[in-house]
Amino acid sequence: MFRARCLLRALRACSSAPCPRQRPAARVSVRGALGVQSANGERVKVQGWIRSIRSQKEVLFLHVNDGSSLESLQVVADSSFDSRELAFGSSVEVQGQLVKSPSKKQNVELKAEKIEVVGSCDAKAFPFKYKERHPLEYLRQYPHLRCRTNVLGSVLRVRSEATAAIHSFFKDSGFVHIHTPVITSNDCEGAGELFQVEPSSKIKVPEENFFNIPVFLTVSGQLHLEVMSGAFTQVFTFGPTFRAENSQSRRHLAEFYMVEAEISFLESLQDLMQVMESLFKTTAMTVLSNCPKDVELCHKFLAPGQKDRLEHMLKNNFLIISYTEAVEILKQASQNFTFTPEWGADLHTEHEKYLVKHCGDIPVFVINYPLVLKPFYMRDNEDGPQHTVAAVDLLVPGVGELFGGSLREERYHLLEQRLARLGLTEAYQWYLDLRRFGSVPHGGFGMGFERYLQCILGIDNIKDVIPFPRFTHSCLL
Amino acid sequence: MFRARCLLRALRACSSAPCPRQRPAARVSVRGALGVQSANGERVKVQGWIRSIRSQKEVLFLHVNDGSSLESLQVVADSSFDSRELAFGSSVEVQGQLVKSPSKKQNVELKAEKIEVVGSCDAKAFPFKYKERHPLEYLRQYPHLRCRTNVLGSVLRVRSEATAAIHSFFKDSGFVHIHTPVITSNDCEGAGELFQVEPSSKIKVPEENFFNIPVFLTVSGQLHLEVMSGAFTQVFTFGPTFRAENSQSRRHLAEFYMVEAEISFLESLQDLMQVMESLFKTTAMTVLSNCPKDVELCHKFLAPGQKDRLEHMLKNNFLIISYTEAVEILKQASQNFTFTPEWGADLHTEHEKYLVKHCGDIPVFVINYPLVLKPFYMRDNEDGPQHTVAAVDLLVPGVGELFGGSLREERYHLLEQRLARLGLTEAYQWYLDLRRFGSVPHGGFGMGFERYLQCILGIDNIKDVIPFPRFTHSCLL
Repeated sequence: MFRARCLLRALRACSSAPCPRQRPAARVSVRGALGVQSANGERVKVQGWIRSIRSQKEVLFLHVNDGSSLESLQVVADSSFDSRELAFGSSVEVQGQLVKSPSKKQNVELKAEKIEVVGSCDAKAFPFKYKERHPLEYLRQYPHLRCRTNVLGSVLRVRSEATAAIHSFFKDSGFVHIHTPVITSNDCEGAGELFQVEPSSKIKVPEENFFNIPVFLTVSGQLHLEVMSGAFTQVFTFGPTFRAENSQSRRHLAEFYMVEAEISFLESLQDLMQVMESLFKTTAMTVLSNCPKDVELCHKFLAPGQKDRLEHMLKNNFLIISYTEAVEILKQASQNFTFTPEWGADLHTEHEKYLVKHCGDIPVFVINYPLVLKPFYMRDNEDGPQHTVAAVDLLVPGVGELFGGSLREERYHLLEQRLARLGLTEAYQWYLDLRRFGSVPHGGFGMGFERYLQCILGIDNIKDVIPFPRFTHSCLL
Repeated sequence: MFRARCLLRALRACSSAPCPRQRPAARVSVRGALGVQSANGERVKVQGWIRSIRSQKEVLFLHVNDGSSLESLQVVADSSFDSRELAFGSSVEVQGQLVKSPSKKQNVELKAEKIEVVGSCDAKAFPFKYKERHPLEYLRQYPHLRCRTNVLGSVLRVRSEATAAIHSFFKDSGFVHIHTPVITSNDCEGAGELFQVEPSSKIKVPEENFFNIPVFLTVSGQLHLEVMSGAFTQVFTFGPTFRAENSQSRRHLAEFYMVEAEISFLESLQDLMQVMESLFKTTAMTVLSNCPKDVELCHKFLAPGQKDRLEHMLKNNFLIISYTEAVEILKQASQNFTFTPEWGADLHTEHEKYLVKHCGDIPVFVINYPLVLKPFYMRDNEDGPQHTVAAVDLLVPGVGELFGGSLREERYHLLEQRLARLGLTEAYQWYLDLRRFGSVPHGGFGMGFERYLQCILGIDNIKDVIPFPRFTHSCLL
């Protein structure tokens, strides 16, 4: 535990004088060991899994990894340590001295005094082979083991860093974090692609419904966030959302994570887009600075050219075009589309891709969509004859739609009319209440977290950026 | 957006010379305004909701709150600003000058130059009345509005702070954050109190099951975390978990949050308990230091004496007793229990309460439970004739069980035997795999986040520490 601190203490104690042999070795992570600037024989204990093993006449080289970093620690041992159990995938505990490495590949290496195999690895049965680079599709078959590979290790460390960076971004900007509910009785909003929740058949509940009413897995925390923005002004949530979409696409999952924010007293899409762009860029910069090697691995082996594409996105101001302009651009395109672009019709993936290309591979906000295309809560622009609402989508290279947001209809009478037209007045009385009691102009957005990771890392399939992907016909573990 | 920074910039610009009238007022949060050390006529714009209004002959006093803090900002205005719409619950935008307050109640007040009612409040219909303190049971009927009260505002700000503190605790200790799945096909572990998930009846899916197999809402991320601890050594998750428990208790919810951690190369319960105690105390200290007023409100109005009880918990080392000792203590108790304490039987809430009292209201770890009481994955202590496993629960005053944890059975043959006895070998082949390929001693724990908040704040009912409580017969919004 608290290995970094332990090491620091241990090294402080060691630095002034050579350590006597009897001092117990300080437990240190691989990352901690590799971070030692001028190794000078500090006695440490490192635990991890063997990533490679090379036996020379009198010397044995091991690389030990514990997941604290992409890089492994090189262990140099007397060949007498060699044993059959010391193999790829085995777990080991190594005690020895941290010394300056003669090789240029690493600063530090561990001169082993004691090597203990903690758990051996059945190499024949182990699905990953030493020195082989397995395709991502192959790794997907082993959700319980793939995290032990370099690439999934890097992706999941980046995911962890990005999660922390997003929490920090909002906290530093004064947002209150809200756990919006996963189980909800709101079923009217979506397109019907909902998962329903019921007690398992094993349970006897007196009533027909556990909750008295049918309940579903949330498709968005937005409406619940709107409740909270009426108290805390700036709120965000970062949790799982669900779609029972019968899709095998490389951009869709049945369970995925959304970052959503809602801001009161916000009156323009411009202000909203500023937060979206800032969230995108701040998080990316933090990730690039905190785990450069992990990002580099993905860029190098999975997405050549992605490094430059990402830099291009980060150094340019995102662009803004209206939906109407977007349709004009598409109409004038030399390309033939499967779906003919037309004012009043949805933008399809092929259109999104074209628009991003057209914008020089810079992320582009598309704003002010036709009212008929969008849900009841989006703010009416009261324009015409092409009637629009204050909606915004952010399209990014490679991924397409990454963010969706809007100003919300805060005017009681306009919202009431739209709900009445949809026959939803009763179900959304509570939502109307928010406009009856101190209503304020407000707006918000949602960002698909997995798509964000795809966009940053250049990873083609969404199933490779989430620890345990759930999609049609697949729920392993 | 980024109000704190904006204010800082604005104040910097203002500080050297008096601001000319024409400079646009900097938008600032109430918290930002209240934090100004020596107000000197800075022109600012504040937006929020009216919490109180008092009209004197020539002066009007408003208190405006925007949820950035418990405290409201006092606005002082000429009585000519008075209007019917300026009422409790209305939203307003106030421009004016930040000045030193002559009153001792606050350092700063806002001398209004312009007051705009953004949204009026239908006072007759508004369920909360000016100056009235409503019971928590009453507030629970209005999940869309109760966050606008002082007490729920404070609780949810504390919840947000504690969330951030927990993320920081693990990040600072080198843990990797993992999003464990909400939907899972593991159904064998629990007591059967599971929610099942299916596509809503509105959807036509060719196959009978969307995922090909029955799937459920997770009851714990532990098994998935164990997968990840085999790659990253130290991992944690913080997400929703579910129980279809038919309970109306003040300690149970159908949807609640769990903080779970898993640590590889961990060989003793002692090391595990150290992390648990450190998580409890570090988070509490951070919350106390970051939102003292919010905590104070809860302690003062909802739980008199809780301040001292919490301090007592924080300054003492948590205690450790074995399950066997606990049963002895209970047997020797003068108190009559509904369930007679006996070796081999579960500890009930009445027992837990007694044990904590017996330990002087200091949180107490109970370790080494009978093997027959605990799930298959807990590490066999191979003792006897009273056969135990290396399990640990933390009992705390007021709440009872707050943490549960254990060392995990990492020895392949022992785990295999226990799975075989339960007929689970096939279903848990993947779990056995983790012991086939570089197995390591490891352990972990889970902490109920809502119970933790109850314990810190002294809040009696779990439904009051979560934004939208879900329990039997209730899923509002």
